Amino acid sequence: MAPVEWFDDLSIGMRFRSPEVKVTEADIKRFAAEFDPQPMHLDDEAAKKTLFGGLAASGWHTAAIAMNLAVQIRPFGPHPLIGMGVDGLRWTLPVRADDVLHLEGEVISLTPSKTKPQGIALVKWTMLNQRGEEVYTFTPIAIVPRRPQVS
Amino acid sequence: MAPVEWFDDLSIGMRFRSPEVKVTEADIKRFAAEFDPQPMHLDDEAAKKTLFGGLAASGWHTAAIAMNLAVQIRPFGPHPLIGMGVDGLRWTLPVRADDVLHLEGEVISLTPSKTKPQGIALVKWTMLNQRGEEVYTFTPIAIVPRRPQVS
Repeated sequence: MAPVEWFDDLSIGMRFRSPEVKVTEADIKRFAAEFDPQPMHLDDEAAKKTLFGGLAASGWHTAAIAMNLAVQIRPFGPHPLIGMGVDGLRWTLPVRADDVLHLEGEVISLTPSKTKPQGIALVKWTMLNQRGEEVYTFTPIAIVPRRPQVS
Repeated sequence: MAPVEWFDDLSIGMRFRSPEVKVTEADIKRFAAEFDPQPMHLDDEAAKKTLFGGLAASGWHTAAIAMNLAVQIRPFGPHPLIGMGVDGLRWTLPVRADDVLHLEGEVISLTPSKTKPQGIALVKWTMLNQRGEEVYTFTPIAIVPRRPQVS
């Protein structure tokens, strides 16, 4: 597959896969202490009494880890990942300490701008754990430049 | 206004407002280094050459800060904020170093479960900066317990 450099190089159905990353208990508690200080993300015993049945990563920690994996993939080649927003953000299973996560992506929509030299690319990203279970999905609304026209 | 304790205490149109928080340049760069290592979030000079025109917080950093403000509000009283996902996540303006942010929320939908003693509460959250400009909106799909029935 030729490397992606511009919006024009993307095609529907194109797939991406990230490296793996391990989430530690220390990571989970550190993120939660700063951004989501609730019992199920901070304290093992207190977490057992919640809907999660044990310590689980903040959903926003999961989201941040997924962003880091997407950046590593460089789905738009040299262009940064710039999103106007996200559709279809769903946390489907808890992320636990020592889970090994990776990200898979598929291009599901490509819409060229009618007025600017760019397009909107939708990649549906799915994060999976070491058992192949889907834990998180999201579809950023990304802006990608079009290949410059030679006149 | 009586304090919210259960799903049954929420009503459409109920509003919330968080304390303010200041975002520093160090915060922006530290979060980006760990989760979103792209030029517009890491390096002042490189950021000037991007669509952002200068250093801006990662959208996921903004999202994490918003979660922290929502946790401080305790919109569901003693019950934690547990979301199945998020709708309507949009980054509408860049968040810059030294911006002072707060969160405003409004209950827009309440759907009791037909099978479980809980309901789905949708609060539309909007984050504003020190100029009153909307920088970020999101609507988590939250699960909130119902008041226990006395038989």
